[in-house]
Amino acid sequence: MVIGGDAAGMSAASQARRRLKKDKLEIVAFEKGHFTSYSACGIPYWIGGAVEDRDLLVAREPAAFRALDIDVRMRHEVLAIDLDKREVVARDLSGGGEVREGFDQLVYATGAVPVTPDWARISGGGVFGVQTLDDGSAIHAWLDSDPKPQRAVVIGGGYIGVEMAEAMVRRGLDVVLLEKSAQPMSTVDPDMGRRVAEAIRGLGIEVHTDAHVQGIETTNGRVSAVVTPGRTLPADIVVLGLGVRPNTALAAAAGLPLGVTGGLPTDLRMRVLGADGVWAAGDCVQSVHRMTGQPIHAPLGTHANKQGRVAGINIGGGYATFPGVIGTAVTKVCDLEVARTGLTEKEATKAGYAFVTASVDSTSRAGYYPGASSMTIKLVAEKRTGLLLGGQIVGRQEAAKRIDALAIAVWNRMTVEEMTALDLSYAPPFSPVWDPVLIAARKATEAVHADD
Amino acid sequence: MVIGGDAAGMSAASQARRRLKKDKLEIVAFEKGHFTSYSACGIPYWIGGAVEDRDLLVAREPAAFRALDIDVRMRHEVLAIDLDKREVVARDLSGGGEVREGFDQLVYATGAVPVTPDWARISGGGVFGVQTLDDGSAIHAWLDSDPKPQRAVVIGGGYIGVEMAEAMVRRGLDVVLLEKSAQPMSTVDPDMGRRVAEAIRGLGIEVHTDAHVQGIETTNGRVSAVVTPGRTLPADIVVLGLGVRPNTALAAAAGLPLGVTGGLPTDLRMRVLGADGVWAAGDCVQSVHRMTGQPIHAPLGTHANKQGRVAGINIGGGYATFPGVIGTAVTKVCDLEVARTGLTEKEATKAGYAFVTASVDSTSRAGYYPGASSMTIKLVAEKRTGLLLGGQIVGRQEAAKRIDALAIAVWNRMTVEEMTALDLSYAPPFSPVWDPVLIAARKATEAVHADD
Repeated sequence: MVIGGDAAGMSAASQARRRLKKDKLEIVAFEKGHFTSYSACGIPYWIGGAVEDRDLLVAREPAAFRALDIDVRMRHEVLAIDLDKREVVARDLSGGGEVREGFDQLVYATGAVPVTPDWARISGGGVFGVQTLDDGSAIHAWLDSDPKPQRAVVIGGGYIGVEMAEAMVRRGLDVVLLEKSAQPMSTVDPDMGRRVAEAIRGLGIEVHTDAHVQGIETTNGRVSAVVTPGRTLPADIVVLGLGVRPNTALAAAAGLPLGVTGGLPTDLRMRVLGADGVWAAGDCVQSVHRMTGQPIHAPLGTHANKQGRVAGINIGGGYATFPGVIGTAVTKVCDLEVARTGLTEKEATKAGYAFVTASVDSTSRAGYYPGASSMTIKLVAEKRTGLLLGGQIVGRQEAAKRIDALAIAVWNRMTVEEMTALDLSYAPPFSPVWDPVLIAARKATEAVHADD
Repeated sequence: MVIGGDAAGMSAASQARRRLKKDKLEIVAFEKGHFTSYSACGIPYWIGGAVEDRDLLVAREPAAFRALDIDVRMRHEVLAIDLDKREVVARDLSGGGEVREGFDQLVYATGAVPVTPDWARISGGGVFGVQTLDDGSAIHAWLDSDPKPQRAVVIGGGYIGVEMAEAMVRRGLDVVLLEKSAQPMSTVDPDMGRRVAEAIRGLGIEVHTDAHVQGIETTNGRVSAVVTPGRTLPADIVVLGLGVRPNTALAAAAGLPLGVTGGLPTDLRMRVLGADGVWAAGDCVQSVHRMTGQPIHAPLGTHANKQGRVAGINIGGGYATFPGVIGTAVTKVCDLEVARTGLTEKEATKAGYAFVTASVDSTSRAGYYPGASSMTIKLVAEKRTGLLLGGQIVGRQEAAKRIDALAIAVWNRMTVEEMTALDLSYAPPFSPVWDPVLIAARKATEAVHADD
């Protein structure tokens, strides 16, 4: 039994089915919405027009799962889980009434829900979260509605906020981005984030920082303005990018444990702690950050897929673990690429580390090779030991995906000194003879020693 | 005292100078040619026209080193090293006669010389190696000479051969590439190399494999043909891409030890084994391959710079080591990118490993995101343990530099199973939700288990 038909739930179902055929394991999956296994991360690109069709974002249709003998029940909302009776109660949202289904093993994969403050709960239309394809369809419909929206206010300057702000620009709207802290993209350090803020403004987006929203006004049932202490911003559409929280209402009601992040805590094999035969995966779980040892809510499609796969392999009688995350993320603003892994300065401080940092400006290719573009790499390394705690990259094309090299170095607990010897690839079309990662490692090593 | 004014030698000189000022350490550097610290790797792009000017390939002029109180003697060829008397004999090629200079510490950084079979030593003009900027200048001059060369034969299908073949095409010549094995680019496995061979042929280059050159013909003092058992190929210019060997004649004459690869063996700090106060770095040394434990000659600019830096830090009283290589390399043929790290199948077999392999075809970006291009990743993993032995990537833009992630995984002796959990970056403009590296790791893990 799977609750939630997106990446985590359906990966679990598929992997379990690969190992156990229908005569050994029946699989029922309930999905509240209209879609299975879709790319929520692709929604801003669909809204902005880079991706033309919604269906391109659907990795696998319900029919594909049914062909694998997975009984997918679309538009079924699970209302309750009874752990003692080992059954769930679900309602068919297409009008088919309530059903009860028993289970031996339960996969809880309900995802996350957008953080929606009270002021955002208005009766009129035009305020949107960006979480499901249904949200995306609603935004598309609103942008095409009459009168055609001209002014967008995006609230929240994180990944989704910035991506949606750019999408709105691409749709021809005037866009204001409101960020409650001193700078958008606060998932990177301020020295790196400044470059992102410049790129956002370069798109013609008006960025207001330290902006606290007090309310939303409506006119004739449609959103008309966003109110902040300083001023009232006219708005024909409001997009919320305030982050998400684990969707655990059902789990809590069923008596499952919730972690300090609000997500479901699991063991390495994705079994919910203390709950026999109950598994969880995806944006509703709490992970462990390998560099802090602390729980973290890390709602990303890549983790959801991996966690679902791990749960499914174990349910199917195999063995797999999900050993935690290190906070890797990447995005793009216009042609500026931004990536991070491990801990930022702020996160390292919070975790209790003392550290040094090193930033270098270099290029994506040999300086003399056509198309070389500038990039900045920043490393954070533990004081004295030189343990690589984190890395950040801001650059143009061919820059950000290099974060994976740093991610694997963080994962393996390399010191920046050992990193200076890494055998990284070099040819003029791909990097300077001193790869930017190596230069950054050298500089960080010097900073560690200077700090002795 | 430094012999050789390119990357390794001048890195050593610069790093030593950073730590010890002139009153503590005098530095003399002899360079036989006209240039210091240049990018030999950039020569094919300069010949092909992508890089317009030779001077762009010079990272640092002699004057820049002199400003650091490094006494660079250009056009000085060292004739002999006397280890007992601690002096070298050099000749000023500009006609200044012989000089003797004493030393306390010697850095041997003479680089490599192109492999030149007897048949390539002809009296006429038009046969070129590609090792120094002087070689590049000579090729440029020959291509502009009268009668203007129309037909090029490139002998050897490795990195330099393939890059030079493409450069010749870009210069408008008809190009034949001769490769003695079954396929060009034999630094990757045949299944991956096939794609490279197709790309080379796609450029209009005629590729002859299993081709053994018997001789070169000249007419009126200019090269006119390359003779193979099958046929005689007309040629107005012949480029040799037969690899290089360590330039150790001076070292051997001085009684320094030579390793099995022909290069100078050193300790971790780049001290020549058994030779007090003698250091070596760059294309003339022998390195250790970390995945085989065997010596390897790995002539690459990136190693030369690192080794020179390590020698210089140690000479300057600091501490640094060069812990070996893992065989990372990358190149580009037209828009096809090719990269490798660790061991290929052939190399793994030779080293004594039993292994499994896994190849996956994936895309550089989410499949639905504009500009996604196809790429193939192949992993080689040890039987039973799943230790990642090597990786290869063939793809289009944004593909090959991902090899660095695999290089760091190899370096850290990761298993492919642990790699399935890696926290790599994901966003639609940068990768599918399952990054190609993760998919390859999953498939390799399955192969390891299937082989149990």
